[in-house]
Formats: sequence, C-alpha cells, structure tokens
Amino acid sequence: MLTVLPVHRAQQVIVKSLALKPARGETVTLHHAPGRITAGDIFAPEELPSFPRSTMDGFAVRSADTFGASEGLPALLNIKGTILMGKEPPGSIAPGEAMSIPTGGVLPQGSDSVVMVEYCEQLGESVAVLRPVTPLENTIQAGDDYQSGDLVLPAGHLIRPQDGGIMAALGLLKIEVVVRPRVIIFSTGDEIIPPEETPRAGQVRDVNGFLLGSQVLENGGDAIFGGIISDRKEVLHNALLQALQEADLVLVSGGSSVGTRDVAIEAINALPGEGVLFHGVSMRPGKPLLYGMSEGKPVFGLSGNPVSAMFGFILFVKPVLRMLCGMPPFAAIVPTVEAVLDTNIASNGGREDYIRVSLNTEGSTGITNWEGNVIRARPVFGGPGLLQTVVQGDGYFVIPRDVEGVAAGSIVKVLLF
Amino acid sequence: MLTVLPVHRAQQVIVKSLALKPARGETVTLHHAPGRITAGDIFAPEELPSFPRSTMDGFAVRSADTFGASEGLPALLNIKGTILMGKEPPGSIAPGEAMSIPTGGVLPQGSDSVVMVEYCEQLGESVAVLRPVTPLENTIQAGDDYQSGDLVLPAGHLIRPQDGGIMAALGLLKIEVVVRPRVIIFSTGDEIIPPEETPRAGQVRDVNGFLLGSQVLENGGDAIFGGIISDRKEVLHNALLQALQEADLVLVSGGSSVGTRDVAIEAINALPGEGVLFHGVSMRPGKPLLYGMSEGKPVFGLSGNPVSAMFGFILFVKPVLRMLCGMPPFAAIVPTVEAVLDTNIASNGGREDYIRVSLNTEGSTGITNWEGNVIRARPVFGGPGLLQTVVQGDGYFVIPRDVEGVAAGSIVKVLLF
Repeated sequence: MLTVLPVHRAQQVIVKSLALKPARGETVTLHHAPGRITAGDIFAPEELPSFPRSTMDGFAVRSADTFGASEGLPALLNIKGTILMGKEPPGSIAPGEAMSIPTGGVLPQGSDSVVMVEYCEQLGESVAVLRPVTPLENTIQAGDDYQSGDLVLPAGHLIRPQDGGIMAALGLLKIEVVVRPRVIIFSTGDEIIPPEETPRAGQVRDVNGFLLGSQVLENGGDAIFGGIISDRKEVLHNALLQALQEADLVLVSGGSSVGTRDVAIEAINALPGEGVLFHGVSMRPGKPLLYGMSEGKPVFGLSGNPVSAMFGFILFVKPVLRMLCGMPPFAAIVPTVEAVLDTNIASNGGREDYIRVSLNTEGSTGITNWEGNVIRARPVFGGPGLLQTVVQGDGYFVIPRDVEGVAAGSIVKVLLF
Repeated sequence: MLTVLPVHRAQQVIVKSLALKPARGETVTLHHAPGRITAGDIFAPEELPSFPRSTMDGFAVRSADTFGASEGLPALLNIKGTILMGKEPPGSIAPGEAMSIPTGGVLPQGSDSVVMVEYCEQLGESVAVLRPVTPLENTIQAGDDYQSGDLVLPAGHLIRPQDGGIMAALGLLKIEVVVRPRVIIFSTGDEIIPPEETPRAGQVRDVNGFLLGSQVLENGGDAIFGGIISDRKEVLHNALLQALQEADLVLVSGGSSVGTRDVAIEAINALPGEGVLFHGVSMRPGKPLLYGMSEGKPVFGLSGNPVSAMFGFILFVKPVLRMLCGMPPFAAIVPTVEAVLDTNIASNGGREDYIRVSLNTEGSTGITNWEGNVIRARPVFGGPGLLQTVVQGDGYFVIPRDVEGVAAGSIVKVLLF
C-alpha cells in the first residue's frame, strides 16, 4: 500500500505542509556573513558615495566654461589648485577656473564635471581645454550608487562576496543572518557500522550519515549526527521523539526492505501530529522516500541506498532547508550545462529517471572555457546501488515521466552536482 | 605606455608564467574534507561491496533451478533458512534449495541470484518460484562498485558530499588535501579608511580588502589582509617584499590614477625576479590590471574600483589560485543560464565588455524551476564605479572584442556570480 506520487506532486505536498514563517535571525560580524542568508531586508544607512567624485584623472571644471572648446580654439582656464586623494579640495572654483583632480578625488564646489587629462594642456598656471564636457561628465555624484534608505539586500538573500563588499562600503559591520536550521540525521539498519570500524561479513560502513550531513552543511543547515540506530519501531520512534525536541528537521536513512519501510511509517505515524504525508515517489533513483510531519516539524525517511538518499535530498530535503532559511523552496534560476548525449538511453514510462553523466569537452582551447566548446554527456551506467555513478558523474539530467527514452545525439541540460 | 592585452592573451601570459608543480598536501579528517581539493590520487584500499548482496527482498536461489518456471508450472524449492541483515547466511544452498533474503542481505554460497518476493509463493517449508531469474539477477557482486586498487578520485579534485561518502564507505578517514594557498591582500590609497571608521570628506571605506578576501576564501585560498597602506613606492615595495616571504600570491588593489599605477609598476619591477609581465587588459570593467612575478610568485595589481577588482579576480586571479591548488587554470565545464536580453546593448569594439544583468523568470510554475521557463536578462546599468551593478546583478555575459553590440531579444549565456 505504497502511496507513490510523481516528483512534482510530492514537492507540492511538501511545500504546502510547511507554514511559511519568518526565519530566526542572529547577528554575525561582516567577516562571517558570506555564505549566510539575510534574516531581514538591509537598507543603506547613508548615501554612497558620500561626496561627488571624479572617475578620471584631469581637471575639475564648470562644464559651461568648456562649451565650444576645440584643439583650434581651446578654453583657457586658471588653475586654482590641486586636489589630493582623501582630502577636501583646497577651496571652490569660480567661472574661468579649474582644479587638478585625480581619479576618485572630491569635486570642488563650483565644478560639475571633469576634463580628462588627455584633453588638457597645462601652460604654467593655466590649462588649455581642447574638448567640451557635458554637465556631470566623468563624475559620480553623491548617492549615485545608493541613497540613504535604499534597499541594499532583501531578506532571504545568500550573501556573496560583493554583498559583503557593499556592506563594508556602508559601514554595516554587524549583519542579521538566518540561524542555521538544526538537522538531526540518523542512519538505521542492523548491517550498518561506523566508518571507523572494519566490516565483518554482511556489514557495511555507514555512508548516509556523512553524505546527508555534508549535503545539509552545503545547503546552509547545521548537521547533527544522531548516530546509527536499530530499525525496530520502538527504538526509531523514541529517537525521533527526542530529536524533534531540538531539531528543525529530522532525516532518517535506511530500511529499503518492505519490513523496515513499514516500521518507519509506523514510527512516524505514532508521533504526535500529522504523521506520514506520502511514501514513495515515482522516480529513479530515490523511489522509497517517505515524508511526514510531527507538530509542524518535517521528518524524512530516505532510502538506505546512498545514491537514492542523495537524490532524495536534492529534490525534497533541499527545498525544505531553503524554506526553513526564509527562502523560496526552489531557486528561480538554476545554471545548467548543455551537452550532447553520446548513447541511447531507455526509460521506463511512468517515472522520472535521473541519469547520471560524466561530461567531457571537445575542441576546448583550454582558455575560453565556457564558450564554443562541444560538451559530451556520457551516462555513468550502474544501478542506484553503485556509488560510482555519482562519484564519477559530474551531474545529471532528467527524463520526464512521459518520455520513454532519449536518443544519442540529443541535447540534454545537465545539472552539476 | 600601457601594455594593454586582450583578455585571452593576458590569461595565456599568466598560465605560462606559473611553473606547474605538485601542490603541497596536508592530512585532514574526512569531516573536514568536503570543499577541499585532493592532493594526490585516491585509490580503493579494498573492494566495495565486500560481499555479494541482494538488491531486492525475496529468495536467494541458483538461477538454473528456476529455468522454465512459470505461474502454471512453478519451480518448487526447499527453504533452507532466513538471512538476517548484517549477519552471515546460516549456511549455503544446494540444488533445489532457496533462502529468504532481505534487500542488502549477503548472498549465501551456492546461490547466484535473487527472485523478487512478488514472484514467490511460500508454502510451508517450500517456495514456489513463478518466474525464472538469470544469473546475477537482483544482486550486486563483491567489487561491483570499486575493485581494490581502483582510482576513486584523481588529484586536483574538489571533494563533494558524495566523494566524502565513498571515502566513508571505504574506511578512508584521513584524506590528503591541498594546503590552501596563502594570499596576502593589501588595499592602497590615501583616501581609504577601514570599514570600522566614519569617512571624512574625500575618504571612502575599504571595500576591496573584504571583497577580494571573500573571493579568495570562496575559491579555496587562505586570505590574509595585509592592511591599508600608502601607495608611495617605498612603502608598497617594502610591503610586497615582506609579504612575498610568506605568501604564495599577493594582491594589491588601488591606484587607478596614472600616477599611482606607475608607482605600482615601479614597486613590482624593483622586486627581485621577473617584474611586471603586463599592465592593462582590453576589457570593461577591469582594464587597469597589472600582473607581475617575483622569483616565481605571482603579484597582481588590481583596480581600486571594487567592480573592476572583482572582475579582475574572476578572470585572472581565480585561474592562478586554481593552479596553486593543483587544478587546471580553467574549469573545463562552467554551467550557465540562457536568457533573453531585454534591451539593446552597444559595445565599444576593441575590448571585451562584461555586462552585468539581473535575471527574472516568466511563466515559472514555482515547482519545475529549471525547465521550460523563459528567463529574461536585464542589464544593471551604471559605470564600473557603482557597486549596485554587481549587488543587484545575478551574473554577467560577455560581449567579445569584435562585436559592437547585442540586440534586445538575443539569447545570452549568463554566468552567475
């Protein structure tokens, strides 16, 4: 009695199940801000730049004084002084005057533009301007970049290097970022041993505890490994009950056999609250995926198979983590690589197939790496039980439910791991 | 006398200037490995899986015993016992025998395949098999994923979650990764003050120290801020000389005026060794870029303008960091977003233009985020002096040197920041 949903339907169930509430914030110093997510809108506390600046080396002038200037009939202006970097100008200029100014220097009062040094000839205490300039030419005015009160970064924004840069420019040194959601991860199964141990016959080292934890960290969560536990119902139920006290999200992997899957369903249904919302998604790898809630907190039961667990994370856990961080569940824009498929791939109608591929360039110059290359996608064959399909693979493309295969030579859009 | 090179030519000069030597390695525990780069090839120390496993719930059998089985004429086999997860099978099977096995269980000696439980009918101590299986069906054999001695990850590989997963599976808990290259960063200019201070007239807060440091960290380097220093030749020369004692790479930003650029050239040329290899690249933003070496160590002089410095980093510093990490200077494959340009853009022939754009989706369902959407690219106008062009921008596309513009409605390939 497995409720198997198509991928998009399962994603909709998950998105609808989560009450969108503002993410909790904490204050970090600017140096710890990159890679974190803004907890609220960030506004400019002052204007940037704070003074009108020259964008060129040259002479600050009144543009009206240069109208009609040419090489044959230059405008002759008196040099009133020299502006130094980081200093106020030594006075203002009046009609017929100019002041030497470096790139980034403060425009003196009375000036509205800068003539590039290339179009000036200094003659003692005068300068001959050989070309006219228009008002504001070669300048940035105060507030041109940001006005005081402007929105600089919206809430739910992943802070990039340049976003930190604008905050440095504005003197914003303490930033309110989203508290990383706490994710507790359990591995279950009598055959699972810690990676530190040497397996005896029938035992395998735990992969999912590390893999899922690493995916959580990569996606802005705080990963706490709850340990390897038995997949008996009481043990699992009690572990979940305790983990939900402190976690924002709980992940359990293991139990791909029918018996253990049923145990996970029962353990989640016995928790206070909503219980299991679906189990099974019509996709490969990743079919045995179970989603439930307890009093508003999401719980996933992921396959014990690492490749299936990894795809379950990408398609279902990641959107939940994003929502817990105050972001929309799916990035509006995801970069892809267009590649030529080099083999025919058959797919089983009725499920989505996530085909893992390695990518190779042909005809690359080695310098212009992202233009004009032919990229070939070669499927890394092997069932979802083989980790090599994701380790040797660079990414994956999707064969939708209603498509029975993709022919060699087709262009596929590959999402990189 | 500015030696201005096209972008690709400047990249070639940089790549050729760096003697490719193996990157230094250090040992980290598996938990610190993701995001680091392998210092050497990593081989499988044992086979994976270490025993033949079932991929289904069912009965382990000799496939020969099931040949010709059908619903009308099932093959009747004696049930020899039950295999438990994580345990050795309770014996082997002989012709005419079967053993109950869960997904992931150890195949018993004598069996070569598994019949799915759906095609079995248990009748007391016998099982009726309703369909034949072929040898190896529904099994993974020992070593199917990795054989002992197989290359698992090559040197110079960025460790992803699944790469950590395979190392956990193989019991590889100490990983040799590349020591992060040490990058010392200076900001220069008499107008520059630390972000903590309040600017007086003519002063601006340092952006590049933070921005470049953040880009270095994002690209696998260890960023050390050397401070804000004067752009006088002696001061700069001495700071470089000392920084080169301990750094693998030195970045100096500032000095977009002709005078200060000349000072940087002189300061680098006065260092022991190669001196300035080029200054000026025909691109916008980023033209005033200076590259030199001292006894094999690279030194960059980047624009004081943050947007120009940022693009200088992306195009020239990042490839150097990659090479210092034992990676090829340019990623062979870079994912992009195809978008429809919504405005005509003119470009000045003779230079590469890096057009910053914001991206918006139309017609998105909000669920199928990366397929079937129309994405529009809107240029974020403003000179390279405005940080908003990279803060409001999602990425950029390139107008090559010999192209004079791109028409509205054209498809552009956008690289995300």
